[in-house]
Amino acid sequence: MSRRGLLIILSSPSGAGKSTLAGRLRKWDDSLRFSVSATTREPREGEENGKDYFFVSVPEFQEQVASGDMLEHARVFGNYYGSPKAPVQAAIEAGRDVLFDIDWQGAQQISNSALQEHVLSIFILPPSITELHRRLVSRGQDAAEVIEKRMQKSWDEISHWDGYDYVLINDDLDATEERLKTIISAERLRRSQQPDLVNHVRELQTQFGERE
Amino acid sequence: MSRRGLLIILSSPSGAGKSTLAGRLRKWDDSLRFSVSATTREPREGEENGKDYFFVSVPEFQEQVASGDMLEHARVFGNYYGSPKAPVQAAIEAGRDVLFDIDWQGAQQISNSALQEHVLSIFILPPSITELHRRLVSRGQDAAEVIEKRMQKSWDEISHWDGYDYVLINDDLDATEERLKTIISAERLRRSQQPDLVNHVRELQTQFGERE
Repeated sequence: MSRRGLLIILSSPSGAGKSTLAGRLRKWDDSLRFSVSATTREPREGEENGKDYFFVSVPEFQEQVASGDMLEHARVFGNYYGSPKAPVQAAIEAGRDVLFDIDWQGAQQISNSALQEHVLSIFILPPSITELHRRLVSRGQDAAEVIEKRMQKSWDEISHWDGYDYVLINDDLDATEERLKTIISAERLRRSQQPDLVNHVRELQTQFGERE
Repeated sequence: MSRRGLLIILSSPSGAGKSTLAGRLRKWDDSLRFSVSATTREPREGEENGKDYFFVSVPEFQEQVASGDMLEHARVFGNYYGSPKAPVQAAIEAGRDVLFDIDWQGAQQISNSALQEHVLSIFILPPSITELHRRLVSRGQDAAEVIEKRMQKSWDEISHWDGYDYVLINDDLDATEERLKTIISAERLRRSQQPDLVNHVRELQTQFGERE
């Protein structure tokens, strides 16, 4: 039976392990698509347009929001971020799950969108704040000031944990990975993801009719 | 972390394999409890009070319904059937899942009850009507007339397939068993089943406070 794809939202404060987990899920199932966000911020070194982000101007971004082409959008640290709708719709209709690495504001918007019955939202919590800070520092990517800014945003993000279907404490990467796979495997079986079921039931109905 | 138990509703027409699957789930996890229904029908040979059913009189049954002690109840073939609430509440608070072998009417009532956020409802479909009939006949339990009555009730049951969270076509017992295990394992991880998460988040909040 063919199935419909899920919109899998993965949210967490930076440093909780979300990117590592998303990478592992992609390895587990390479049919999984990442939703590439559009943003008005400047590309960082090494970032590729269309792969890491769609880099657009502010007027372009606003135009897309106004035309209803964004599934969700938000302003973070003075820049706009949003998830273009068309590639997501195409993927889920082709039976492919789409992974969203977005914050609680985006999660809330997608969870209330027309596609809400296909949404699976998961929040990843760190085991402790010390550990969250340690992971941000050990990435060695960001200046102390940026790390502090991220830490401050963390509580804002964590405080919205209760808007998600699933909330996992990432105290062990392998265990969290297994849980994510179990959750995704199950949610793919949901009635709402199985458009062909209605045909099977119609077939049963016909067979009942023929018995009479 | 302690968890809250699920109310797992398994519905299907007779002959779709539900009892076999329920038995396999019990073997997989012996902490799973079966909800023992109360009924006003006469015990059949070999049936044990308190194990197969709670056999009660019509006035006793009506009294329990009136006092709100039944999670759901229905009248089938002239007899009353119902699920007593107290043992279910005790089990799920102790973190044990409870399995309900009930029809769509009962499923609907439990899905709309105060415990609805802990309900997981699954419908098992047969691969075909011929196969359903074959399985009923091959059990050798029932007279031809009873089988015909069950077949007639089957469509009534199947026609409510779309009120369930998950709908599985049981064309292969092992595959269906695996799917059921995946679904139950995932649903146990839902935020609503993890009452201790709120304590973890409070702990994180305290740690944030201490940083400032």
